[in-house]
Amino acid sequence: MIKRLALIGVGLIGGSLVRALKKAKYCDHVVGCDVDVSALKRAQDLGVIDSYEQDPALAVGGADVVVIATPVGTVTNIFQRIAGHLAKDVLLTDVGSVKVAVVEAAGKVFGEVPSFFVPGHPIAGTEYSGVDASFAELFLRRRVILSPTSTTSQHALTRARELWLHTGADIMEMTAEHHDEVLAATSHLPHLLAYTLVDTLVQMDASEEIFRYAAGGFRDFTRIAASHPIMWRDICLTNRNAILQMITRYTEELFKLQKAIEAGDGEKITAVFCRAKAARDRLRVE
Amino acid sequence: MIKRLALIGVGLIGGSLVRALKKAKYCDHVVGCDVDVSALKRAQDLGVIDSYEQDPALAVGGADVVVIATPVGTVTNIFQRIAGHLAKDVLLTDVGSVKVAVVEAAGKVFGEVPSFFVPGHPIAGTEYSGVDASFAELFLRRRVILSPTSTTSQHALTRARELWLHTGADIMEMTAEHHDEVLAATSHLPHLLAYTLVDTLVQMDASEEIFRYAAGGFRDFTRIAASHPIMWRDICLTNRNAILQMITRYTEELFKLQKAIEAGDGEKITAVFCRAKAARDRLRVE
Repeated sequence: MIKRLALIGVGLIGGSLVRALKKAKYCDHVVGCDVDVSALKRAQDLGVIDSYEQDPALAVGGADVVVIATPVGTVTNIFQRIAGHLAKDVLLTDVGSVKVAVVEAAGKVFGEVPSFFVPGHPIAGTEYSGVDASFAELFLRRRVILSPTSTTSQHALTRARELWLHTGADIMEMTAEHHDEVLAATSHLPHLLAYTLVDTLVQMDASEEIFRYAAGGFRDFTRIAASHPIMWRDICLTNRNAILQMITRYTEELFKLQKAIEAGDGEKITAVFCRAKAARDRLRVE
Repeated sequence: MIKRLALIGVGLIGGSLVRALKKAKYCDHVVGCDVDVSALKRAQDLGVIDSYEQDPALAVGGADVVVIATPVGTVTNIFQRIAGHLAKDVLLTDVGSVKVAVVEAAGKVFGEVPSFFVPGHPIAGTEYSGVDASFAELFLRRRVILSPTSTTSQHALTRARELWLHTGADIMEMTAEHHDEVLAATSHLPHLLAYTLVDTLVQMDASEEIFRYAAGGFRDFTRIAASHPIMWRDICLTNRNAILQMITRYTEELFKLQKAIEAGDGEKITAVFCRAKAARDRLRVE
């Protein structure tokens, strides 16, 4: 049971997390903290948070759990502002889509990665942002990856698992490095491809008409491209190497397909499509 | 009212079309024709078709409407096999995802594009294929593009419109050339990007794990990549120029984003994401 949870960043993910914990009666008081005061007021009106502070140092005071749910580009600054203000037996965790950069930031600010820090990442979200879009069921049967470091205490890890269990999520563990590679492939690259597609079409002369005739496949892409721009900028900047590697791999494959189409090589084209379809049918990701 | 409809190609699209027409009591007898005899038997068992012929020349005999619903790579051959066997007042139409190649094939086989031919393309589909996946509501409130040529008779066009009206679709008209450009952008390119993404990941060492941790964005991609490989091969081969042009545009944009990430240029990255999000929010394609 959490007595006082400090939520730094009151948006879709953070809002959904505390909604879930409250619904499970696993959390008593939530103090919100955000650079956007109107988001804090709105969250209080909605009953998502119980009180708020604008200064992270004040927000974390006396909190037994601190959750950072801001775009990953802000974590160094947040670590700096809360260091020295945390309660003695605090559990510190985050929900960032990138883990190595967060672990490195923690190491830099705290001297070493604190034993009470458990890096985390729920693989969940929608194309909407903000506390208004948050809902208690967002993490139900979704995966949450925890990336404890060599300095993370077993006690902190157990508490982080406990917390996520109360949201209905499936918890798995992997190193921060491995997390960043897997996510670059399965989440970061697809989002960048979707953003690039929509941006390519926007710049065409017939873009209005093109969006009007948008077919099924394209709709899926534009849905992805409606995600939070700043969050995705920070992901690009903090998981740069893994992302660049994936873009390079992808571009190579796209180039091969382009050459096959140019050459009218039906066999080669079919091979790509069949391999992709077979993989999808076999490893069905539902 | 259609007395006898010959359906060449008994799969998802053709099956759904005749299901819709029968449900609307707009079609009496459907004779199916397909290279796959088991698909014909299955369609007859399901009540989707009433009889079948394996020879297209026999199938179209006495039919007042002929619908070609096979992958576009087969249309030249089908035109050749049915020419000279069509009834006097026939309406000939197709559902292919590419229109210029189909119009050219008709011109070549029939001497000029026949007055009774109305090229068509319903913008509808699912990731499943085959007559078992067909359903009467597939075209409900979906767009159908008709691309009459300068030789198409008003009478034939009216009948084609009538036919699609009974499926609940919204009908629009554009030239075959314009259709192919718009579809290259909104449907063909997205599908190729999705196929390429899945194929890129399949070839990675950690592919099993990668598919297991697949996040939301990636799921949308793999759904698209489960589409019919032969249909998509034929689209690539017959709409080659428009597709290659789109791949080139896309690759240029992806390259710019890659460079921005490499340079750590947060402003440029944000600009792309914001432009895409704004376009999506403005032109909302629901």
